[in-house]
Amino acid sequence: MVVASQSLEELCINSVRFLAIDAVEKANSGHPGLPMGAAPMCFVLWDQFLRFNPKNPDWVNRDRFVLSAGHGSMLQYALLYLTGYDSVTIEDIQQFRQWGSRTPGHPENFETKGVEVTTGPLGQGICNAVGLAMAEAHLAAKFNRPDCTLIDHYTYALMGDGCNMEGVSGEACSLAGHLGLGKLIALYDDNHISIDGDTTVSFTEDVGMRYRAYGWHVIEVPNGDTDLGAIAQAITEAKSVTDKPTLIKIRTTIGYGSPNRSGTAGIHGAALGAAEIAATRENLGWSHEPFVVPADALAHWRKAIDRGAEAESTWEQIWQIYKDKYPAEAVEFDRQINYRLPEGWEKCLPTYTPEDKPVATRKTSEITLNAIAEAVPELIGGSADLTHSNLTYLKCSTDFQKGTYAGRNLRFGVREHAMGAICNGIALHNTGLIPFDATFLVFADYMRAAIRLSALSQCQVIHVLTHDSVALGEDGPTHQPVETIPSLRAIPGLLVFRPADGNETSGAYKVAIERRKESSVMAMSRQNLPQLAGSSIEAVAKGAYIAIDCGCDTPDLILLATGSEVSLCVDAAKELGDKKVRVVSMPCRELFEEQDEAYRSSILPKGVKRLVVEAASSFGWGKYIGDEGDMISVDCFGASAPGGTIMKEFGFTVENVVAKAKKLMA
Amino acid sequence: MVVASQSLEELCINSVRFLAIDAVEKANSGHPGLPMGAAPMCFVLWDQFLRFNPKNPDWVNRDRFVLSAGHGSMLQYALLYLTGYDSVTIEDIQQFRQWGSRTPGHPENFETKGVEVTTGPLGQGICNAVGLAMAEAHLAAKFNRPDCTLIDHYTYALMGDGCNMEGVSGEACSLAGHLGLGKLIALYDDNHISIDGDTTVSFTEDVGMRYRAYGWHVIEVPNGDTDLGAIAQAITEAKSVTDKPTLIKIRTTIGYGSPNRSGTAGIHGAALGAAEIAATRENLGWSHEPFVVPADALAHWRKAIDRGAEAESTWEQIWQIYKDKYPAEAVEFDRQINYRLPEGWEKCLPTYTPEDKPVATRKTSEITLNAIAEAVPELIGGSADLTHSNLTYLKCSTDFQKGTYAGRNLRFGVREHAMGAICNGIALHNTGLIPFDATFLVFADYMRAAIRLSALSQCQVIHVLTHDSVALGEDGPTHQPVETIPSLRAIPGLLVFRPADGNETSGAYKVAIERRKESSVMAMSRQNLPQLAGSSIEAVAKGAYIAIDCGCDTPDLILLATGSEVSLCVDAAKELGDKKVRVVSMPCRELFEEQDEAYRSSILPKGVKRLVVEAASSFGWGKYIGDEGDMISVDCFGASAPGGTIMKEFGFTVENVVAKAKKLMA
Repeated sequence: MVVASQSLEELCINSVRFLAIDAVEKANSGHPGLPMGAAPMCFVLWDQFLRFNPKNPDWVNRDRFVLSAGHGSMLQYALLYLTGYDSVTIEDIQQFRQWGSRTPGHPENFETKGVEVTTGPLGQGICNAVGLAMAEAHLAAKFNRPDCTLIDHYTYALMGDGCNMEGVSGEACSLAGHLGLGKLIALYDDNHISIDGDTTVSFTEDVGMRYRAYGWHVIEVPNGDTDLGAIAQAITEAKSVTDKPTLIKIRTTIGYGSPNRSGTAGIHGAALGAAEIAATRENLGWSHEPFVVPADALAHWRKAIDRGAEAESTWEQIWQIYKDKYPAEAVEFDRQINYRLPEGWEKCLPTYTPEDKPVATRKTSEITLNAIAEAVPELIGGSADLTHSNLTYLKCSTDFQKGTYAGRNLRFGVREHAMGAICNGIALHNTGLIPFDATFLVFADYMRAAIRLSALSQCQVIHVLTHDSVALGEDGPTHQPVETIPSLRAIPGLLVFRPADGNETSGAYKVAIERRKESSVMAMSRQNLPQLAGSSIEAVAKGAYIAIDCGCDTPDLILLATGSEVSLCVDAAKELGDKKVRVVSMPCRELFEEQDEAYRSSILPKGVKRLVVEAASSFGWGKYIGDEGDMISVDCFGASAPGGTIMKEFGFTVENVVAKAKKLMA
Repeated sequence: MVVASQSLEELCINSVRFLAIDAVEKANSGHPGLPMGAAPMCFVLWDQFLRFNPKNPDWVNRDRFVLSAGHGSMLQYALLYLTGYDSVTIEDIQQFRQWGSRTPGHPENFETKGVEVTTGPLGQGICNAVGLAMAEAHLAAKFNRPDCTLIDHYTYALMGDGCNMEGVSGEACSLAGHLGLGKLIALYDDNHISIDGDTTVSFTEDVGMRYRAYGWHVIEVPNGDTDLGAIAQAITEAKSVTDKPTLIKIRTTIGYGSPNRSGTAGIHGAALGAAEIAATRENLGWSHEPFVVPADALAHWRKAIDRGAEAESTWEQIWQIYKDKYPAEAVEFDRQINYRLPEGWEKCLPTYTPEDKPVATRKTSEITLNAIAEAVPELIGGSADLTHSNLTYLKCSTDFQKGTYAGRNLRFGVREHAMGAICNGIALHNTGLIPFDATFLVFADYMRAAIRLSALSQCQVIHVLTHDSVALGEDGPTHQPVETIPSLRAIPGLLVFRPADGNETSGAYKVAIERRKESSVMAMSRQNLPQLAGSSIEAVAKGAYIAIDCGCDTPDLILLATGSEVSLCVDAAKELGDKKVRVVSMPCRELFEEQDEAYRSSILPKGVKRLVVEAASSFGWGKYIGDEGDMISVDCFGASAPGGTIMKEFGFTVENVVAKAKKLMA
């Protein structure tokens, strides 16, 4: 096919294709196939439907676009450049996948304005999109008034076969169908190719039927390569269906335009090479130099700037009216979306004295969460079907369900992985919402890919993970975390809290709420724990503190513990009354490691032997144990028995702590 | 409802219910609801269909039964006891969930004979069942002859709403439909209740329609509480459908028989208590003491013993004929299912000299895997749609597809989590198959719950995880493992290999193949690595060895490295020629830690400073760094750029190793 003359639409579409081809070629790395195949649907979407302001990527009521098939990042960078975002210049595109560039291999929200969420790990983006749509529905239900619609935008996601094969997308889309998220529209780039070749090798299910089973509206576009009218019609239809999310299954050709490699896996993830690029230029009638977009195409794309300015200006008028009519709500809206916490919110945090009765930290977590929920209305979340075990129900609110989106209790079902990814999406709606999720700590493994992305994409999610050790008892090793806490501590940037009592619980939540670009894990006990004498909210902020001291700067031994083992060490220290023993509680290693050397050595002076006590794997404690220290840990899988029996069998007794301590001091 | 007199069927079914009620009550812990509701379907299945020999739980051609809803463990223990397995006595049931018992909180294959796989983490069991069915199909295709059917059994799984909400089940069932696994039959205990209450709070999709979309045959049984005939008819129909797996959606009442708590979440996971047990006894007309099964019910159930003996005896006759007619195949079958590796198989392992060209360990992995595949016909596996990146295709075999089940190349699609769980199932078919799976190392996070279960359930799975560090380059931080290797090392019992070259690759696979009850991770480089002078297959078996020594027992410094950083340290040691520097390669920490103190201190003598070099998080290295050492590591997320640039920017250069080494020796 030689195209003699091209329509403006074709020019616009081919501009996307060749930016992708040229950038991947220059980097000699990347994925040209998806941008080439999905350029038509994105042209239609971004040109006719997507409401955004390139000059203000943060405009609160913009439509959200998620490239769930994140390997096609050049598609997104091309769209951002063409529509006039300042974040992606032609130079940035020429620096695709280079050190320090704003155009990394996969889209990263923290690197490139206009990229809403970080994608690449397949299936995550569509789940983020479900979260974005939930955030929109929630804010709309909360702030809109019959005569004043403040929040009213769509969330679009582009997904490929990979996204649809990943189970996490099924979890999220089942939930999206259940919730009837009518403003969620997924474009499925149905190109029949994955990395291993034709999808017939492993993926022959009826995807449309599956989505109908989830309660979605499904539209098919048989020719997504050239039938722009059908794509536009489908999106229009999707927008008209207000009570269901819509999947638009668009049949495309991967690498469209490449005469020898289109429709094959060979064009998915490798540069085309000079010869095939030449053939593709010939085939698509493209005579422009690399990285050159014809002026009329660029001019057309850049109409997005005026369109965007007008859209935001129209919204600004609504916002003015809203402020006049609903001043209190407007103040609240403004506060929340600008990430200002309610003044004095932290006064809600409960405190405890040793006279207060022993309770599980999952229970103090419940008390704290509920207190915060009243003081901080942007807190929203729930559990993966363990609400009454994780103790995460917000009593001041109601369920978030179809038609009751103002509710702040999310019901995720048994879908841990989607839960994590949805919470990332809620956080990255960037309107101040603070999502939390919850399950048993051991099932962090199910959602680990999402937890990693919480940390990587600098979004604030609180992961409430209860039943935090073998002490949970009878459920046995499948349910008992052993290596889970260490494995979470290993994730860069994630704050892992393991509070020892009520005060530490409050302190942990205080940090988690105040750090607006960090994710936290709350590892909470199933079993009751006493309220400690030395604990406080403030102490947690420094990560570790002296719970009991021996009245001297250089103790003979430090008992270093976290969570449920702190009170055990306090009891052991009493038994060791004649020795100079210090007990250090370390509710958050990451915070401790942020402190200056002076603080750190005031808590853990060099040269003093340490006995670390944590009911988890010793993996990762070496740097604190040191060459001369020891640890009481669990370095095998757990067992099924009452929790007290297990703790005893694994050596978490005063006697054993005392014995090990004495041995170290001998 | 007061039942005046009970049929034998009712007695048998109520025996299951009350064993569950009584055991949970005695333990004051456990899940009575599922056993009470699913007892009828299990009675029909185990009494009329399931082919097994209680007195030989290892009979190779038994039907496999998987309790995917593992929390209902008392259902399985009751069935094992009632049908006459020696592994579960009435005393064992009375010890439900107690320390050291054979009846732990969730079914564990390594604790209780008759339990095929370890379940509890939801969704895993049905994926294991897909793996079991794949193993059956493979062995049947490989060993059966037109006149002699050696392997011919069904795989049944019982799943609940939780299993169906988990995305991992969707992944596996989509693949099962694609593969047309006709002998896989899933019983869906559709009781409309999950822990948070009625499934209407989060799970309203049309499950049957979804399975039809996957290519399954779907049958509905509207009354699974009492319509035993309909259940039997459905199973009969399912068996008659030979080209598709079948889902039987059976509507039941959770906690059937409990007058006040049946049909509610309240009976899911808690003891009934004396009053409600009394009411349930009254309601179901059950007058027997706790843990007492009426003689006629027990006698009926125990007919399974004769039935099983007969079934196995019939099979033994076939086996005799097979041995006569196909002696070579019989020898091979016998060898494989008895876990004897082919004699001298290890001779296939390639070796290298420093003159051999540098290649990536993913490439030496490919060479090794292919060599092993020829020598060890029980090796079977594949990748999650990254076959040509992971380099895992077995050239001596063909694809495992519908109708070509003899093929040993598994095509998992982009379904990492199901892949891991399916491999667990293949391994736990206990017929000697050695499954491997493959993806990028960073996506171990997607399948972590399955990897954990590989290790916990003592099954041999080889996880081939390539692109093992930030050196993979341009794909950027979403694709770059940093904390992944440490987080895998934290899992008890898992062998984590990071070979430095071809010899170490062969050595790693040698251990992985020979350890028949352990799972291994192979962390393999994307980039080329030189063949080292000091490496060998044998050296890997001890976990760490001296790659280059300084000709003395007490070096000034040890450079301790793994994988791609070993050759870097070798180069640095050359630069440090005037110093006494030893380079230690540690391809597997777990193996090193198995060695005796003498060996360990011969490699890493106490008192010698160490510089650890690994392109991953330092988390977990503290015990080897020691109080005086240092490390070159990656303690943040990676970046998108060419791999060489990244390694340089992160300090993985000879210059930096030399500088840090000199500083330590200063």
